[in-house]
Amino acid sequence: MVGRRSTGLIQGVRRSIWLKEDDEQVVQIIDQRHLPHRLVIEDIRTSEEMARAVADMHLRGAPLIGVAAAYGMYLAFARGEDPRRAEEKLLNTRPTAVNLKWALEQVRSAVENEISAAKKIQKALKTANRIAADDIETCRKIGGHGLKIIESIAKRKNGASVEILTHCNAGWLACVEWGTATSAVYQAFEKKIQIHVWVDETRPRSQGARLTAWELAERGIPHRVIVDSAAGHLMQRGHVDLVIVGTDRTTRTGDVANKIGTYLVALAAKDNRVPFYVAAPSSSIDWNAKDGVRDIPIEERHADEVKYVQGFSDGEVRQVRLTREDTEAANYAFDVTPRRLITGIITERGIAEANERSLLRLFPEKK
Amino acid sequence: MVGRRSTGLIQGVRRSIWLKEDDEQVVQIIDQRHLPHRLVIEDIRTSEEMARAVADMHLRGAPLIGVAAAYGMYLAFARGEDPRRAEEKLLNTRPTAVNLKWALEQVRSAVENEISAAKKIQKALKTANRIAADDIETCRKIGGHGLKIIESIAKRKNGASVEILTHCNAGWLACVEWGTATSAVYQAFEKKIQIHVWVDETRPRSQGARLTAWELAERGIPHRVIVDSAAGHLMQRGHVDLVIVGTDRTTRTGDVANKIGTYLVALAAKDNRVPFYVAAPSSSIDWNAKDGVRDIPIEERHADEVKYVQGFSDGEVRQVRLTREDTEAANYAFDVTPRRLITGIITERGIAEANERSLLRLFPEKK
Repeated sequence: MVGRRSTGLIQGVRRSIWLKEDDEQVVQIIDQRHLPHRLVIEDIRTSEEMARAVADMHLRGAPLIGVAAAYGMYLAFARGEDPRRAEEKLLNTRPTAVNLKWALEQVRSAVENEISAAKKIQKALKTANRIAADDIETCRKIGGHGLKIIESIAKRKNGASVEILTHCNAGWLACVEWGTATSAVYQAFEKKIQIHVWVDETRPRSQGARLTAWELAERGIPHRVIVDSAAGHLMQRGHVDLVIVGTDRTTRTGDVANKIGTYLVALAAKDNRVPFYVAAPSSSIDWNAKDGVRDIPIEERHADEVKYVQGFSDGEVRQVRLTREDTEAANYAFDVTPRRLITGIITERGIAEANERSLLRLFPEKK
Repeated sequence: MVGRRSTGLIQGVRRSIWLKEDDEQVVQIIDQRHLPHRLVIEDIRTSEEMARAVADMHLRGAPLIGVAAAYGMYLAFARGEDPRRAEEKLLNTRPTAVNLKWALEQVRSAVENEISAAKKIQKALKTANRIAADDIETCRKIGGHGLKIIESIAKRKNGASVEILTHCNAGWLACVEWGTATSAVYQAFEKKIQIHVWVDETRPRSQGARLTAWELAERGIPHRVIVDSAAGHLMQRGHVDLVIVGTDRTTRTGDVANKIGTYLVALAAKDNRVPFYVAAPSSSIDWNAKDGVRDIPIEERHADEVKYVQGFSDGEVRQVRLTREDTEAANYAFDVTPRRLITGIITERGIAEANERSLLRLFPEKK
């Protein structure tokens, strides 16, 4: 049962969402806006509260958004809300992540033949639990495939540290456990391979500096935070062996939408012959999309996320304004990395090249 | 006389350094660390104070650093300091900008045949004033050449706004007046050409969000601030017609060292066929350097510049910490953009292609 994991939370928490231990009608999440300064656990009681948590980014990350949406639907049934309204509200929180839509469809089809309210609640919960459990297993497998890449570089480097660069947070805070991009890092660390991670801070919301660095610090994995602009310089000087990032949506042809700036990292990797891998659970592959730039909607968020920065000062988490008050800013949340820049896409079934033929070889049922 | 300009400062200040109106033994600068929140004028009385102002980035920008160093030497002579120690201290403040070394050499050779202290002071001041005046004229000319590029795009776009992207601050706050990269922008605006500027915020020190946006706002030029990571997305979607950036040091072969992240912008420009220009006064060309990656030292600054962000909150300029306190960060201040990514180098004598032959055609005395 998912909820059981909530014991011993504060020390060594490595899970992002669970049912409350003594009240199964409450879902608990980490309100990630307070990290790395404070670990805040939030009780979510309604689909409305879950939609707000997703839209306002108490939690984020494509896989976790999907899981959260499924639990949101469970709460809708458990609280006797209108499921259609709940689904619509959850769907409209974040337009780029395809997992969201996928997870909502999973719940809808699980309950559609049930008539009793109790059965609907039960099926919705079971589906949400299954999606969460599947995500854990998927991430574990992705890490296993990614580990082989790290092992082969470690062998070539003969004991010298493998230098891995990542952008944003595709760790367990973006999933349920393990993470997508970080799973291979954790597995390599557990196998005592020497690694060091360059963590792009990931403006505007600093998910790298705040979340990825926190995750790595919690496990004692060597890392350094850099500004996003430094990735090219590091690669030009030979300080990066491998890039692994996550994805919010990948087309069947291998174009990858991910956090704004991923495209620039990929250009730098290509220019310096650094392998660039995307960790993509199949739930984040949009089999209906063929052209990333044309088919993937890019979310624009509020300009204040660019103008204000949140951090810790005098014992408090507070925001400071970088610009003049009247300055206008534009805030694109994601960009699209064209397949030609991608070395490989690491899925739970193995590593594909970034093209339709290779992805379909791993997922023949999508032909 | 340079000092005379200090009148009417607070309203419409457009100059970065000058002699104090009623005391020629004091140099005044804008302490840029407080912008855009407060306009603070600082009195500099010794070469030591000037060296600290340069090292701690009260002022910055390759051309201004050169001018400031020259005035620093003037103060050294005026105060009867040991000129050799003063020069050494000033030289060691910032390793990347070549203007610094050049300006110090100008003062040294101007005073070397003088015996009387009074004459030395006079010559040092004259040299500093000349370097400042030359910089203004150089920037004006660079803007004139850049203006032609903007005019030709405006013509092609038939009245639609010319979309210009810039990185960091290569405005008058980085020079004395006009700026290098912004000079063409100001001249286009004065000619009533429709323009809009995308301002890269430029982490870690936010010179774009703080300084370039402030400069543009003061003149009423339309602009929006973006995170550095957004440049690729904007170009991919056709929202950028032209990139103009400054430079801290350019090799005789056309490789360009500039603020960290410039290389990524250039990669994105190349990938999307957006013209990428560098505004380079000849004082920033290092005629002894042939290979940018090999020959240009890249300054590493304190990790706290990455971990802490300065902004405005509750009526005060304050710093907030983004990361955990114990997080390590790396802070490379510049990167090198290889000449193959550069459309043209805009000098005071005209626009060169980014190669030795073309630069030497404009500067045949450097053959």
